[in-house]
Amino acid sequence: MPEYKAPLRDMRFLIDEVFDFPATYAAIGASDATPDMVSAILEEGAKFCEQVLSPINRSGDEEECQWKDGVVTTPKGFKEAFAQYVEGGWNGLAADPAYGGQGLPHSLGLIISEMVASSNQSWAMYPGLTHGAMSAIHAHGTEEQKQTYLTRMTEGRWTGTMCLTEPHCGTDLGIIKTRAVPQADGSYAVSGTKIFISAGEHDMSENIVHLVLAKLPDAPAGTKGISLFIVPKFMPAADGAVGARNAVSCGSIEHKMGIKASATCVMNFDSATGYLIGEANKGLNCMFTMMNHARLGTGMQGLCLGEASYQGAVRYANDRLQMRALTGPKAPEKAADPIIVHPDVRRMLLTMKAFNEGNRALSYFTAQLLDIAHGSPDAEQRQEADDLLAFLTPICKAFMTETGLEATNLGMQVFGGHGYIREWGMEQLVRDCRIAPIYEGTNGIQALDLLGRKVLGSQGKLLRGFTKRVHKFCQAQAEHPQFRGQVAELARLNQQWGELTQKVGMAAMKNPDEVGAASVDYLMYSGYIVLAWFWLQMAVVAQAKLDAGTSEAAYYQTKLATFDFYFKRLLPRTTAHQAGVEAGSDSLMALPAEQFAL
Amino acid sequence: MPEYKAPLRDMRFLIDEVFDFPATYAAIGASDATPDMVSAILEEGAKFCEQVLSPINRSGDEEECQWKDGVVTTPKGFKEAFAQYVEGGWNGLAADPAYGGQGLPHSLGLIISEMVASSNQSWAMYPGLTHGAMSAIHAHGTEEQKQTYLTRMTEGRWTGTMCLTEPHCGTDLGIIKTRAVPQADGSYAVSGTKIFISAGEHDMSENIVHLVLAKLPDAPAGTKGISLFIVPKFMPAADGAVGARNAVSCGSIEHKMGIKASATCVMNFDSATGYLIGEANKGLNCMFTMMNHARLGTGMQGLCLGEASYQGAVRYANDRLQMRALTGPKAPEKAADPIIVHPDVRRMLLTMKAFNEGNRALSYFTAQLLDIAHGSPDAEQRQEADDLLAFLTPICKAFMTETGLEATNLGMQVFGGHGYIREWGMEQLVRDCRIAPIYEGTNGIQALDLLGRKVLGSQGKLLRGFTKRVHKFCQAQAEHPQFRGQVAELARLNQQWGELTQKVGMAAMKNPDEVGAASVDYLMYSGYIVLAWFWLQMAVVAQAKLDAGTSEAAYYQTKLATFDFYFKRLLPRTTAHQAGVEAGSDSLMALPAEQFAL
Repeated sequence: MPEYKAPLRDMRFLIDEVFDFPATYAAIGASDATPDMVSAILEEGAKFCEQVLSPINRSGDEEECQWKDGVVTTPKGFKEAFAQYVEGGWNGLAADPAYGGQGLPHSLGLIISEMVASSNQSWAMYPGLTHGAMSAIHAHGTEEQKQTYLTRMTEGRWTGTMCLTEPHCGTDLGIIKTRAVPQADGSYAVSGTKIFISAGEHDMSENIVHLVLAKLPDAPAGTKGISLFIVPKFMPAADGAVGARNAVSCGSIEHKMGIKASATCVMNFDSATGYLIGEANKGLNCMFTMMNHARLGTGMQGLCLGEASYQGAVRYANDRLQMRALTGPKAPEKAADPIIVHPDVRRMLLTMKAFNEGNRALSYFTAQLLDIAHGSPDAEQRQEADDLLAFLTPICKAFMTETGLEATNLGMQVFGGHGYIREWGMEQLVRDCRIAPIYEGTNGIQALDLLGRKVLGSQGKLLRGFTKRVHKFCQAQAEHPQFRGQVAELARLNQQWGELTQKVGMAAMKNPDEVGAASVDYLMYSGYIVLAWFWLQMAVVAQAKLDAGTSEAAYYQTKLATFDFYFKRLLPRTTAHQAGVEAGSDSLMALPAEQFAL
Repeated sequence: MPEYKAPLRDMRFLIDEVFDFPATYAAIGASDATPDMVSAILEEGAKFCEQVLSPINRSGDEEECQWKDGVVTTPKGFKEAFAQYVEGGWNGLAADPAYGGQGLPHSLGLIISEMVASSNQSWAMYPGLTHGAMSAIHAHGTEEQKQTYLTRMTEGRWTGTMCLTEPHCGTDLGIIKTRAVPQADGSYAVSGTKIFISAGEHDMSENIVHLVLAKLPDAPAGTKGISLFIVPKFMPAADGAVGARNAVSCGSIEHKMGIKASATCVMNFDSATGYLIGEANKGLNCMFTMMNHARLGTGMQGLCLGEASYQGAVRYANDRLQMRALTGPKAPEKAADPIIVHPDVRRMLLTMKAFNEGNRALSYFTAQLLDIAHGSPDAEQRQEADDLLAFLTPICKAFMTETGLEATNLGMQVFGGHGYIREWGMEQLVRDCRIAPIYEGTNGIQALDLLGRKVLGSQGKLLRGFTKRVHKFCQAQAEHPQFRGQVAELARLNQQWGELTQKVGMAAMKNPDEVGAASVDYLMYSGYIVLAWFWLQMAVVAQAKLDAGTSEAAYYQTKLATFDFYFKRLLPRTTAHQAGVEAGSDSLMALPAEQFAL
C-alpha cells in the first residue's frame, strides 16, 4: 500500500506564497488562524492521517463493512480512529463556536479533509457526511434543532447523513416517493426507502442524524414540493443522551466497486418521527446551500486519490529496475535501470503531478472563496466570491474527478502487472476514485449546471467574472521575461473561451439540445484553461523565488518543470474538446432510441 | 449483469459485406469454411456463449478462484463449461487437422474467442492461454512433442500456459533467473519462480503444459540467452494418459482487481523435468512467432468488454426514467423520460458504439491478415500481410484496450450510482478490462514497438505500406457523393501522419529519448486514423446498400449515424495527440529522478 505523506510543502506554497491565506484570514476576522496555529494544525493533521488513517486503508478495503440484522460493523480500527479524530478536536475544527466548534476557517477544514481522504477515502466518508449534515442544520435549523443536534454532531458523539436518492431516482429528485405526514405534536411521520446512503448505519457514534428529503401530503408536484426533515436514529433525550429507537433501519448495504469500508446503506423509514427543517417545500433549496461545499469536497477526492497514487508511483518508478535507458545505462552497476529513466514513465508521472498540483491550486483558491463568501465583512466581496464559487464549483467537481481518475489509472499503469494486484494498493485507489465522477451529481449533471445554469443562465456574466480575472492577469504578465509564450497562449484560449460560449449560446437559443450536446466537452475545455491560469500563477511565484535566491531551488525548479509539461502536453487537449463543443447536437440526436441496439 | 447477445448482424456485416472473408477462405484453401458452415458456427458459438458462459460471469467474479495447499478450484460451473466447450469442438476449431484440429481459419477462431471473452473474460483465459501454448508447440515443437502435447491440448484434455514473468522482471525478460540444467537423458531440470501465470493451476483439465522461459547454464547474458521449455504438470504416459507428478507447483494465486475467476498463479519449478522446444537460446524468438496472435487477442479484450458494457448501457438507457428532455417531454405518460433522450447520455453511448464497431472492423481486418499470412499460396501476399500485421498489431493491442477501457467506464457512467454497485455487473467489466492495457506487453511497450521497432526501424516502410492503402482508398472515393468531406479529412490526416513521423524520426536520430517521449501519443494518433479508415469503408458499404434498396435500412442508417459521430466527435482527438508527439522530450527529461518526489 502506498504510504501517505502529506505534501505539506506544496500546501504551504499555495497557502502562503500563491494565495495569501493569512491576508484572507485577517480580512474575515479569523484571528485564531495565525500562521503558527495553521502550521501546528497542518503538522498534527498530517501526523494523524499518516499514522492512524493510512495504515487502515488497505485492510478496510479487504474487510469491507459487514451488515447483520440491521447492524453495520465497520472494519477494524475505524471506530477507534474516529474516537481519536474526535478527541483531537478535528471534527469541530471549522464548526461554529456557538455550538461547540473551533470556528477556524472552512479552507483549513478542507485542507485537513484533503489529508484525511488522501490517506483513507472510505473512512473520510463518515466525518464528510456529518459535516454536510451539520452545514444544513446550521443554515436552516431552528435554534432548538441546533442545540439538540448540531452541538452533539460538533462534539463528534453523533454523526449525520444526507438521504436524497431513492431506488427510482437520483438525479431527478422531483419524483421522490418518500412521504412525511404531519402529526398532532408538530412532528412528521416519515415513510419511504432511501438508497445509497453513505454512513447511514455504522458503529462509530452514539446516534445518527438523518437529513431526509420527503414530500408533504399536499406538496406540489416536482422539485418545488420537496421538504427536508431531521430523522434521528435514536430520539434525543433531554440530557443530551439518546432515548428510544426511531423507526428507521438499515435494510442492507451495497457491495460496491470501491470505498468498500464506507457503509452505503438502504435506509427504510417506517413512519419514523421526523422534524421539518427549514421551510416546507423548500427542501431542495436547503440542500443547495451546502452544495458548493460538498461538490468541492467531492472534486477533491480526485486530487486526494491522485496524490496518493502519485506518491506510490514515484517510489516504485525509482525502485523498480527494468530495461536500459535508450540513451545508455543510467545505473550500470545494477541489472537494469530504474524505470523512471524511461520517457513514457515520466510522461505518466508528470501527467499525474501536473493534475494533482493544478487541482490543488484550483481547490485551495475555491476554498479561499468559500471563506470570503461566508466571512467577508464586505458585501460586494461576498457577492463576487459567491459568483466565482457558483462558476467554479461544477468545474471543481467534474474536472478534478475526471483528471483524478486518470491520475490513479496512470499510477496503476506505472506498476505494470503489480498495479493490478490488490496487495500493492494501487488498484484500490482507482476503485475508490471511480465513484467520484458519479456521486454528488454525475459529471454530466455538473456540465449541464456549468454551461446551462451558470454560464448561459447568467447570460455569460459568471463566465466573464472569471475570464476578466484571467485577462487582467495576462495583461499584467504579458511581458514576463520567461513566460511570455505561455501567457499569450492562455490569453488566446481565454478569449476563444468567450467566443466558443457565444457560439453555443446562439445555437442553444434555437435548439436546447445543443447545451447537453456541448456540455461535457465544454466543462473539460474550461477546466484545462482554468488549470492553465493556476499553473501560470504558480510559475510566476516560483520564478520570482528563484530570481530572488532561495535555499529551496530544487522545489521551485520542479514546479517550473511541471508547469512546462502542463502547457506542452496537457493544455493542447483543449483542441479536441473544442471540436466536441463545436460538433453540435445533430450527430447525437439523429438516431431513434430503438436503433441504438442495432 | 448485462446479458450478452452476440452481435451476429454486425459480425456478418464485416465478414461478408466489408472484408469478404469468403474470398479469402477460398484463396487460402479453407474449403470447409463455406458460408453455410460459417453461419452455423457463428450461431452455435453465440448460443454457447450466451447460454453457458454469460450466466457464470458475475458469479465467477464473486466466488473467485480458491487456492488451498497448491490446489486451485475454479468457480462453480467453470469446469462444466469447459467440458461443454471441448465437447462442442470449440477448442480445436482452428487447430491443425494433423493433430486433431478442425483446421478452420484463424479468423473464425478469433471471432469465436470474441464471443467467449465478451460473455466471460475470466473463463476465456483458460482456452486463450492454451491456444497460445498450442501455437508455440505447433511452430517450434518436434514431431514427437506435437504428438505428445499438441494432440491432447487440441482435444481439450490438457491445457497450457506461458511462463515468462518473474518477480523482478516482466518487460525486461533479459534478466530472468529461472535456470535449466541439462540432464543425462536429454531432458532439463528447470528451477525458478514464475509469477502472473494465467491458468497456471486449476481443476478444468487432466494435465497442464507449461511453456517456460529459462536460461541454460552457459547462456549468453540478456535476451539472446533465453530458451523455451515444455514442463508438464504430470509426466505424459505412453498411452496418452498422465503419469507421475512433475516438480512444479502453484505456490499461491494473486488477489486482483478483476478477472478474478482467472487463476493468476505463482509457479514454483523445483528441478522440474522440462524439454527444450525450438533452438537453445532462441526462446524469445519462439515467443515472438505467436505474439501477433496473442496481442490481437488481448486487444480484442477491449472490444469484447466494451461490447458487453454497451449492451448493458443501451438497455438501461432505454429503461431508466430520469428528468425530461430539454426539448420537452418524450414520454409524457411516464414520471420522467428514459435517459436515452439526453444528448450527453447519447454521447456516451455513441462513443462506446463507435469504438466497439471500429475496433471490431480493425480486429477482423487483422484476423483476415493472419489467415493470409498463414495460408496464402502467394509468397508476396503472405509477406504483405505479415508487414501489415507487424504494423497493426501494437495498434490493435494498445488502442483497442485504451478505448475499450474508456467504453467500459462510460457504460458504467450511464448507470449512475447503480454502475458502482457490483450486482449490476457494469463495474466488473471495467475491472476485467483494466488488465488489458497492462499485460501481454504494456501499452507503453506497444507504443515503443510501433514507433521505434516497426515504423522507424523499417525506415518508414511499414507505415507507408499502410498509408498507401489509405491513400488509394481516398483517391478512389474522393468524389463520393455523400462522404467527400470525410474522405478529404482522412486524406489530410493520412498525409500528416507521414510528415509527423518524419519529424519524430529526425529528432530521434539526434536523441533516442524522442521516441519514448512521442510513442504513446503517436500510437493513439495512429489508432484514430486507422479507425477513421475503417469507419469510412463501413460507411461506403452501408451507403451502397441503402442506395441499392435494402430491407435493413435501419441497420445501415445506424451505421452511418455512428460513422458521422466518429468523424465529428472522436477523430478530432488526433489534434491533442499530435501536440503530444510534437512536444518532444525536453519537458519529460528535464527533472532529475529525485526531484519527482518534491
